[in-house]
Amino acid sequence: EVSFDPKEHQHLRYNPLRDTWVLVSAHRMKRPWAGQVEKPPEEHIPRYDPRNPLCPGNTRANGEVNSDYDSTFVFENDFPALQPDAPDPGSDQHPLFQSKAARGACKVMCFHPWSDITLPLMEKHEVVKVIDKWVGLVEELGTTYPWVQIFENKGAMMGCSNPHPHCQVWASNFLPNEPALSDRCQRAYYQKHGEPMLLQYARQEAEKKERVVVESSDWLAVVPYWATWPYQTLLLPRRHVLRINDLTTEEREGLADIMKRLLTKYDNLFEISFPYSMGWHGAPTGPHLKEDNSHWQLHAHYYPPLLRSATVKKFMVGYEMLAQEQRDLTPEQAAEKLRNLPEEHYKSRHN
Amino acid sequence: EVSFDPKEHQHLRYNPLRDTWVLVSAHRMKRPWAGQVEKPPEEHIPRYDPRNPLCPGNTRANGEVNSDYDSTFVFENDFPALQPDAPDPGSDQHPLFQSKAARGACKVMCFHPWSDITLPLMEKHEVVKVIDKWVGLVEELGTTYPWVQIFENKGAMMGCSNPHPHCQVWASNFLPNEPALSDRCQRAYYQKHGEPMLLQYARQEAEKKERVVVESSDWLAVVPYWATWPYQTLLLPRRHVLRINDLTTEEREGLADIMKRLLTKYDNLFEISFPYSMGWHGAPTGPHLKEDNSHWQLHAHYYPPLLRSATVKKFMVGYEMLAQEQRDLTPEQAAEKLRNLPEEHYKSRHN
Ligand SMILES: O=P(O)(O)O[C@H]1O[C@H](CO)[C@@H](O)[C@H](O)[C@H]1O
Ligand SMILES: O=P(O)(O)O[C@H]1O[C@H](CO)[C@@H](O)[C@H](O)[C@H]1O
Repeated sequence: EVSFDPKEHQHLRYNPLRDTWVLVSAHRMKRPWAGQVEKPPEEHIPRYDPRNPLCPGNTRANGEVNSDYDSTFVFENDFPALQPDAPDPGSDQHPLFQSKAARGACKVMCFHPWSDITLPLMEKHEVVKVIDKWVGLVEELGTTYPWVQIFENKGAMMGCSNPHPHCQVWASNFLPNEPALSDRCQRAYYQKHGEPMLLQYARQEAEKKERVVVESSDWLAVVPYWATWPYQTLLLPRRHVLRINDLTTEEREGLADIMKRLLTKYDNLFEISFPYSMGWHGAPTGPHLKEDNSHWQLHAHYYPPLLRSATVKKFMVGYEMLAQEQRDLTPEQAAEKLRNLPEEHYKSRHN
Repeated sequence: EVSFDPKEHQHLRYNPLRDTWVLVSAHRMKRPWAGQVEKPPEEHIPRYDPRNPLCPGNTRANGEVNSDYDSTFVFENDFPALQPDAPDPGSDQHPLFQSKAARGACKVMCFHPWSDITLPLMEKHEVVKVIDKWVGLVEELGTTYPWVQIFENKGAMMGCSNPHPHCQVWASNFLPNEPALSDRCQRAYYQKHGEPMLLQYARQEAEKKERVVVESSDWLAVVPYWATWPYQTLLLPRRHVLRINDLTTEEREGLADIMKRLLTKYDNLFEISFPYSMGWHGAPTGPHLKEDNSHWQLHAHYYPPLLRSATVKKFMVGYEMLAQEQRDLTPEQAAEKLRNLPEEHYKSRHN
């Protein structure tokens, strides 16, 4: 009888946040790659580009002029997927042809006046400004909207069409699929085990250590046991926190610090500005503010596409789209790689 | 009061096969695209390449020699994500660290001896051979395995690392996430409405016509009401059919025909060999063969990534990964575009 080795033997792992399974087939990393190769990220971005609609003082597509901002800068998305006033589709509600009204707001937030900087290279106090603005937007939009999705698409590979450091905030009058599922799973766990799922999870991971990437007294970043993307991470506070606006001043500073550390490791992995999509999930807002949401724990997901190098990504296609997600290295292997990388950014070292 | 126009006003649509919603924001097509541009597919593929491991008579990575095949050709995947004999992980089954054994088989199937041909350009009788082989593989692997996933990744953009026309078949000792969800949804619908969901759906769409792309007496291809990918289609028989191996000889011929018509339209849309991932979903097999699976209806999903042109795809990132899928044109607009394209392949016209 061969004894089980997760690096050699395919197996399934359960994702309790989504009630799904991932197929871990780490031996697949041995296959050669003859497929598509991505363009590495642009290295020579001008600090200021008069044609870039996100730079301070520039005019955007709709004729509006950006302020001459010197920190963060928030404006309405010029091509919003969600608008506050769309009429109701008023469908006949046949069970196979159901539609619903969708209303909301889409904002863009620039992190910094410079186009050639990214979060890990910003000063800590500048990252705190970004976090403060996230808090402000969740408070403002969360007064009425049940869900406020903060997300960052970083890098052309992740559909980001502008190199200027920025994120987006889409607020909606509905709970989208992913948070609805996560809400359901966390609620069921809480009812069964009497403790918030992710609080228990953070404690266990902090003890086990094998999937920890970076940690501090307040925060923890791990490659989750059920990660689907090769270098996916989950970033969360160690204390029970429902929403980003519940963080204390110290916790916001601690967050700026751990984000810089995590993102520096990401950039150091392949010595490029690491592409990813990231976003925050916290307890729902609007009408849900009045409910008991103790089952929730604030957390951020980082979903980076790269697998083998700066130019070879993991394709979530075919089997993944039609059957189930599959990964080619274990979460423990990914965490170890990231953990062992220096905390000094390769760009500072090279200077 | 403005009256509702699906092309102008964002709204949500329900996907009854996955119990999820999609955000339709068709007005987003108006925004300019300054982001990543893909390489158009390679147009000059040699018919035979001595270094291509999929060509007849060539030697593969593991030293095996392909037969001198002149039709389809099936072999074991040289880098299988699923193997028949992996040991059990034997986890402690803590609710947050659950793992399970995964066993299975991975096969590759070449459609044709030539590397420079694709399904829409193959002769109908050659496509029938492909379908017959699919049937044979589902029968063979489905004797023991509960799920047999047939899928094709087409084009480098979809992670396909070899231009030779081929698909893959991954069979597993577990029901993967997507079919498990689809099984649940179809079962609940059947219990509530007394008719298989997709049979009722096909009938309604055949009447409504606005989302039909191609149809025949036996088959129907539509851009589903709940499509997430821009030109996604659902291909299904009009008769109640549980599995691909339940198709009659006539239905297999009809399938070859409608596949050629659908894929020709796909290629004609941007006058390139259209990339996609596709796969078949039918009632589960193995131990499920003994159960009542009347709620199931055989169908194929086509998920093509392109949105605007041969080189601009839809990025399912950020909001889509963290919150909910969003589309930039209505399914009716997509269906109309495809429907109005000629049924003669642009390559034949240009010759
Ligand atoms: O097996 P292939 O074609 O080498 O690999 C491709 O298809 C697989 C199944 O969809 C995916 O897991 C891989 O990410 C993709 O690159
Ligand atoms: O809004 P952007 O950055 O132009 O667009 C990007 O992010 C959106 C939200 O994740 C996606 O829907 C788009 O497909 C992507 O290209």
